[in-house]
Amino acid sequence: MTKHLFDQALELQAAGSDRPDTWLGTTSPAYWNMVGPFGGSTAATALQAVMQHPALLGEPIALTVNYASATAEGPFSITATPVRTNRSTQHWVLSLNQPNAKGEDVAVMTATAMTALRRETWQVNDMPMPDVPAPKDVERARLAGAMEWLNRYDMRFVRGGIPRKWDGADKLSPDSLTQLWVRDDVPRPLDFASITAMADVFYPRVWLRRPLHVPAGTVSMTVYFHASAAQLQQAGTGYVLAQARGQAFRHGFFDQSAQLWDESGTLLVTSHQLVYFKE
Amino acid sequence: MTKHLFDQALELQAAGSDRPDTWLGTTSPAYWNMVGPFGGSTAATALQAVMQHPALLGEPIALTVNYASATAEGPFSITATPVRTNRSTQHWVLSLNQPNAKGEDVAVMTATAMTALRRETWQVNDMPMPDVPAPKDVERARLAGAMEWLNRYDMRFVRGGIPRKWDGADKLSPDSLTQLWVRDDVPRPLDFASITAMADVFYPRVWLRRPLHVPAGTVSMTVYFHASAAQLQQAGTGYVLAQARGQAFRHGFFDQSAQLWDESGTLLVTSHQLVYFKE
Repeated sequence: MTKHLFDQALELQAAGSDRPDTWLGTTSPAYWNMVGPFGGSTAATALQAVMQHPALLGEPIALTVNYASATAEGPFSITATPVRTNRSTQHWVLSLNQPNAKGEDVAVMTATAMTALRRETWQVNDMPMPDVPAPKDVERARLAGAMEWLNRYDMRFVRGGIPRKWDGADKLSPDSLTQLWVRDDVPRPLDFASITAMADVFYPRVWLRRPLHVPAGTVSMTVYFHASAAQLQQAGTGYVLAQARGQAFRHGFFDQSAQLWDESGTLLVTSHQLVYFKE
Repeated sequence: MTKHLFDQALELQAAGSDRPDTWLGTTSPAYWNMVGPFGGSTAATALQAVMQHPALLGEPIALTVNYASATAEGPFSITATPVRTNRSTQHWVLSLNQPNAKGEDVAVMTATAMTALRRETWQVNDMPMPDVPAPKDVERARLAGAMEWLNRYDMRFVRGGIPRKWDGADKLSPDSLTQLWVRDDVPRPLDFASITAMADVFYPRVWLRRPLHVPAGTVSMTVYFHASAAQLQQAGTGYVLAQARGQAFRHGFFDQSAQLWDESGTLLVTSHQLVYFKE
């Protein structure tokens, strides 16, 4: 059986015993965006380096990735160092590197992660899943022919789909809210890596708020993992309801706040990102 | 004239020419919390190391700090390394270190920051300031006698103040929303460091949602700076409206999403954090 394309994209080889924190990978053409890989798959690959580190304590609870430049097609290294291990939490510092034009090894992504032993506590969900139609009742978006990574996802926009007319200079949308059902295509059971990628599945909010096709790209993303491995496993190959909304657009950057629920309404992750835009 | 206590807390000395990215500081008793300094002042100190680095490009746009342990009373070092400088953006990796019981230098905080040259672009605020009474019409909270750092702020809770009765096992609040006016006491003109500290000014959401006085502490915080230095300067010594709301409480952690506006309604920063809680 062929490995799922997402699992192929996540493949990392240990760099060797003299560099125990370093892993080697290659960019995946299947998850190609415009000038580099889909940022969500790069973030997932960074998390993967933590997940397969022999010193790992617990499960991911927080991840922040900063995109310093587009990742170039080809090989890269990820160094994931557990800089502090407490009784029930662990702190990671990461760097994804590639050679630059001069052949120097430079960071194309910096990141920090935190893992922890989850335990049962009192719980409450203060961000209930919005009332939306079921995935089967929402038409799948036709995104073929656009960027390659879009073919890896089944996306069904409930609200705030990609504008059909780029007439934003004259006509603002009333808000920057998008809600969509999303899952891997081919379906793949949810895990920490795939939900990380899905946290970056939204097209730039600035295109929705002011429908102009301006250059835009994520510069920093944070994911807080509220779901345990068991809860992700329980969500299985079901759809995820992904919601994002911008808060401020100014000085060439905007932010977005996002929530992802499984079909049963469990809030799996919350996420935030800062995005560069032009004009 | 005596320096403002916040500026005293931010004081950093260059470690020397053999460690050009490292700065030395000392914890401030004036900003003491329970078992370490107020996390907001520690985050501000980390940002300060970036701000006074001779290689700095532009102004802060994003900061993520991860609290690996409580900072102990006494000296610390901060290393702020500009790992990647682009044409208009710069990526920083930071570590705040102290000696542990064995005398080894260990990270008590890891962080990443991003700075950028701001430029004028199209702008819109998708998170308008809520309609609340003016600071002068809201009673100042009496917090004297509690933790020392609380004496450094004038806080006026519009909604969601600290519970008076710790009867949460029986009685949940309907939500975890807090809104307060806040400014430095003694008043001090706003800047990137002080607004960073204010982004961490909220008491734990879990205390509001379920009024039980359980142990809780921030483990990771991200701040996105939407305001320019000029906009912060314009806000001057005015009050800041700070709003925070939890999204999920589960497995010993909760998150919070926060917004801070100046009195004129300009959204200065948005912020998110993940907080540990017990039981």
